[in-house]
Amino acid sequence: MNDYPKFAVIGGGSWATAIVKMLSENLSEIAWYMRSENAIAELKENFRNPNYLSSVEFDIDQLILTNDINEAIAYADYIVFAVPSAFLNSEMKNLTVSLKDKVVLSAIKGIIPETSLIVGEHFHQVYDVPYTNIGVITGPCHAEEVALERLSYITIACSNEEVAKVVKDCISSHYIKVKISDDIVGTEYAAMLKNIYAIACGMAHGLGYGDNFQALLMSNAIREMKKFIKKVHKMKRNINDSAYLGDLLVTGYSLFSRNRMFGNMIGKGYTVKSAQMEMSMIAEGYYATKSAYELNKLHGAKTPIIDAVYDILYEGKDPKKTFKKLTDKLD
Amino acid sequence: MNDYPKFAVIGGGSWATAIVKMLSENLSEIAWYMRSENAIAELKENFRNPNYLSSVEFDIDQLILTNDINEAIAYADYIVFAVPSAFLNSEMKNLTVSLKDKVVLSAIKGIIPETSLIVGEHFHQVYDVPYTNIGVITGPCHAEEVALERLSYITIACSNEEVAKVVKDCISSHYIKVKISDDIVGTEYAAMLKNIYAIACGMAHGLGYGDNFQALLMSNAIREMKKFIKKVHKMKRNINDSAYLGDLLVTGYSLFSRNRMFGNMIGKGYTVKSAQMEMSMIAEGYYATKSAYELNKLHGAKTPIIDAVYDILYEGKDPKKTFKKLTDKLD
Repeated sequence: MNDYPKFAVIGGGSWATAIVKMLSENLSEIAWYMRSENAIAELKENFRNPNYLSSVEFDIDQLILTNDINEAIAYADYIVFAVPSAFLNSEMKNLTVSLKDKVVLSAIKGIIPETSLIVGEHFHQVYDVPYTNIGVITGPCHAEEVALERLSYITIACSNEEVAKVVKDCISSHYIKVKISDDIVGTEYAAMLKNIYAIACGMAHGLGYGDNFQALLMSNAIREMKKFIKKVHKMKRNINDSAYLGDLLVTGYSLFSRNRMFGNMIGKGYTVKSAQMEMSMIAEGYYATKSAYELNKLHGAKTPIIDAVYDILYEGKDPKKTFKKLTDKLD
Repeated sequence: MNDYPKFAVIGGGSWATAIVKMLSENLSEIAWYMRSENAIAELKENFRNPNYLSSVEFDIDQLILTNDINEAIAYADYIVFAVPSAFLNSEMKNLTVSLKDKVVLSAIKGIIPETSLIVGEHFHQVYDVPYTNIGVITGPCHAEEVALERLSYITIACSNEEVAKVVKDCISSHYIKVKISDDIVGTEYAAMLKNIYAIACGMAHGLGYGDNFQALLMSNAIREMKKFIKKVHKMKRNINDSAYLGDLLVTGYSLFSRNRMFGNMIGKGYTVKSAQMEMSMIAEGYYATKSAYELNKLHGAKTPIIDAVYDILYEGKDPKKTFKKLTDKLD
């Protein structure tokens, strides 16, 4: 296994934990950065991340655990970022090591709120990482099912096919199959947009719409996503591939999706503030909605679902009336 | 309301009941044929179909209830057939009235086992109904949600747009929105194929695959459906429209779908016979699988999911091994 590059995973959440698990099937050593010293101490003692996917037992000898992001990044050739997009900047503020010669893999499904950039663009513009060294790791994949070793399919998008193949080799296992794509922009936007549609699904559910409408909403969402991504980055892609449609479905139909849950509370009458407080965290799709809405002002794709979610979250429009109008625009 | 044509609905099941309810929002009179004299007697006494959607109360003065199929068909200009495809022939054996000058609308989601034809082709070939008088009523639409008056979207496919518009006017209401399509062949095949994919979803669930795989399976199913339908009837269509993708999703994600339930039992180890006995009825997708498989021998579309379901249902192949092989063909 010595031919594999050195990997670091940045993040202590469930998706980061799932990625460390995937890598640990193939690599003898992985650097794992997480902010929480407590979590690191517990991992060392009990071989489990106490906060996320705690059913997964790690071989501690495989892990270089650190709460110093520079140590993790200096160690590795390939860096997987798997922190919520809203926290990326605060995690990176202590960074002194250069990312320029590293391969940067985004497992962040969202947009960087401060720059309104998708993660690949952000790393390119802010950290001078060349696009050939940027990749995306995307689903359809709930971390919880990785923990259970239930068969899941991952897409690695990268303009450099060699890099994609290395990542594929490092994360493939009896429960992970990997597809390679060259659409880094499209897969990132899909991963971000699907969170908005999951909010819309949640809102619809909270408002009392049923399964027939949910299916209709999904059918419209994938068509809307196709139009949006085509405006942003036109290339040949099949929007029904698993990185786009599959990822949309696994999130939109998941009762455990934070975005869907957030939308559900709004649909049931919570204000945005109270829903956020109740959840004690902010759903990725909340930021994605604003970014997508504003980006689309430039592009002008017809996106009635994104517009409706934006109107409700940012313009204080009434969810019930807004959805009633939306239903006339869907088919 | 006198400008509307006269409608008859053929069938006493949940989908037939839902269609009578939709029509009753607009028409002052509807002929409703069902085989069961008991059900008719109970409907007359309690204003409800005792066997299906019994929460729906009908205004009995609107209904011409009959268990004589000739009476219903002689009365009407537009005939909606909503019996399971496997029972169409036995229902029709007493038919003496000609269908030649009627508009025939298929709300049957399946294939006629005796002729291996989709319903429109069957009525054309066997009953000389011209294609311009044949239409399809399709979902995504669970009858149960029509009963609850939850917003649902119906597609009416017909080569004659005037006919489609009339049907649209007759079934639209505050909870039913209608889209018109000219793809009678494609929508019928979609309605039939989705039952096979629902069986596959059920099998996957029964075998222990999770939500990640379900989303992946759906993403592959819609691509497979597109290829299949394109071979059978090439025309410009967006496979992500609600009549195709929406209908696939509402069935594949429904825990109440008979097809999914049937697949689930097979996945859990029931034989085909015992699953059919346990369910005391035969899932539409069982016949659809054989027909689709055989039809595709002529066309040669790549349909690994249909092939796997066929191998399990008709060739006695082991579900676990067959799905393991299938997972290598999906992406």
